Amino acid sequence: MKTLLLKKEEISQLISMMDVIGAVEEAYKAFNSGQVAQPDYMSIHLPPPRGEIDFKAGYCQSNEMISLKASSGAFPRNPEFGLPSGMGTILLFDATTCALACVMDGSLITGLRTGASGAVSVKALARKNAKVIASIGTGNQARMQIRAIREVMAIEAIHAWDHHPASLLKFKADIEREFGIPVVPAPTAREAVERADILITTTRGKGSLVEAAWVKPGTHIVAIGTDVQGKQEFEPGIFRNAKIVNDSIAQCTVKGETWHPLNSGIITLEDIHGEIGEILLGKKPGRENDEEITIFDSTGMAIQDNTTSAKIYRNALENNIGTFFAFFEK
Amino acid sequence: MKTLLLKKEEISQLISMMDVIGAVEEAYKAFNSGQVAQPDYMSIHLPPPRGEIDFKAGYCQSNEMISLKASSGAFPRNPEFGLPSGMGTILLFDATTCALACVMDGSLITGLRTGASGAVSVKALARKNAKVIASIGTGNQARMQIRAIREVMAIEAIHAWDHHPASLLKFKADIEREFGIPVVPAPTAREAVERADILITTTRGKGSLVEAAWVKPGTHIVAIGTDVQGKQEFEPGIFRNAKIVNDSIAQCTVKGETWHPLNSGIITLEDIHGEIGEILLGKKPGRENDEEITIFDSTGMAIQDNTTSAKIYRNALENNIGTFFAFFEK
Repeated sequence: MKTLLLKKEEISQLISMMDVIGAVEEAYKAFNSGQVAQPDYMSIHLPPPRGEIDFKAGYCQSNEMISLKASSGAFPRNPEFGLPSGMGTILLFDATTCALACVMDGSLITGLRTGASGAVSVKALARKNAKVIASIGTGNQARMQIRAIREVMAIEAIHAWDHHPASLLKFKADIEREFGIPVVPAPTAREAVERADILITTTRGKGSLVEAAWVKPGTHIVAIGTDVQGKQEFEPGIFRNAKIVNDSIAQCTVKGETWHPLNSGIITLEDIHGEIGEILLGKKPGRENDEEITIFDSTGMAIQDNTTSAKIYRNALENNIGTFFAFFEK
Repeated sequence: MKTLLLKKEEISQLISMMDVIGAVEEAYKAFNSGQVAQPDYMSIHLPPPRGEIDFKAGYCQSNEMISLKASSGAFPRNPEFGLPSGMGTILLFDATTCALACVMDGSLITGLRTGASGAVSVKALARKNAKVIASIGTGNQARMQIRAIREVMAIEAIHAWDHHPASLLKFKADIEREFGIPVVPAPTAREAVERADILITTTRGKGSLVEAAWVKPGTHIVAIGTDVQGKQEFEPGIFRNAKIVNDSIAQCTVKGETWHPLNSGIITLEDIHGEIGEILLGKKPGRENDEEITIFDSTGMAIQDNTTSAKIYRNALENNIGTFFAFFEK
């Protein structure tokens, strides 16, 4: 029994963003087909100033793989040791036997599969004539969203805003150089939001940034930043009369942006349209007209790590990439 | 940043049972010194006839390591694939940075550290003149208990009993050949128990096997088999007037043998003497006379995996054993 070892540089060559989008669609469909087991995740919080390490596991019956992702962040002193502030490792087990099939670096996968989730929601929920994006937040995940969404639509322009002007200018330079999409720095969040066909929020969720009145009819919102209790990016009133779609209702109503309007009584559970996987499976409609505001609230699921890393593993086997190691010799 | 890879055959050479006993003592002491974080573990149950895979994580402030153990069992069809019914993998992270320090096979560690836990309890709780063991159950863990306890006391004889005569005879042959300790097959569990200075139970916990009346004064009981809700090895009355010691009160009162007398009202929480780490630290007394019956109820803790695998890792570094691999090159 041999285990495949994959390093970060191999992984970046082994998977395209289109592959990740396909893997995330597969994950969402499996989740809403009763093919997924995802136990509550484990966290260990280290003494300050260190951050935490999380362990997320998922089983997918359609690919018969079990994944375990260990991801750490934020360790502000790591650069002193020549290390990034957060790292990751993924184990893949063959669910037939529970043999350890693969150990891979997990630094890239969270960013990739989260970016892909936005693109999947754009395919399902944005207007077909959408062309202008507003990006509130200009960090790594904002780049991942653009990288993924450009695979599924033609982006004419990006109106971007950030608390930090230096980050905003670097985002503009990077996106224009890498993708040739013009980025317009917005003087206020409002001026970006008002121009959006698709509004993406990827901030640290330190409080309401986007007001309901700014969002024009027909906008599709990709709400990424709020993934734990205490984070918030939107005025909760924005959920009133919007078509609300969650990746996981169980998660979003506890730790996603959807928690805020529920908590303040602006919506009830019945006002949540459904889960993205239900739309992908045709069990529920996606966008039904060009006027409705659609909100995709994404908190991230272990099963996305599962299908994405399983795709990387299959690509590695097909292309003879990686190093085999026998941890356990029968 | 490089990660050390250790395979099963290397691990078996890298650690002695005395090392494991030391590591388990370290774990118990750390646990009762507020130096441990152990989140609730994650389980994924596969469709039958397959078993489950569990993920247990622990952080130990005294060694600044974080461990994650993935362990699977029981997969009855695995022999068809040339694989054992259960397997394991351990990840070790340097808690200073959360860098992945080591990936090692985890097949041996659960058995070793569970065996060592019995020996630690014998040192703390058995009579100093104890020399006769009763072993109820004769499988792998029964062997591990003997292997560990012989490191801390001279065993004169073992009276062994098992539902399965073939297993009992194989146990006798193996123990006599390996350790030179005479094994007396007992015709009934009672006849073994009545002769015991130390009584070890390592069965599958399918119901009460040991009656209270059989246990003579001064006996130390090592209760291993019951580690999940639903298992049982003892008539609950045995806990009445015994000195009850748990590895973790939080665990034993929910899924250990200690649950049964609590549930039937034979004891209350106040009747539990304490945790083994408190005794090792001198916070509470161990055995106080030659007449009392002591019970060590062990459900197993992630922190035992942590300190044991961290010791293996340190031994590997000191002896230049293992293979380095760069999953993540800064």
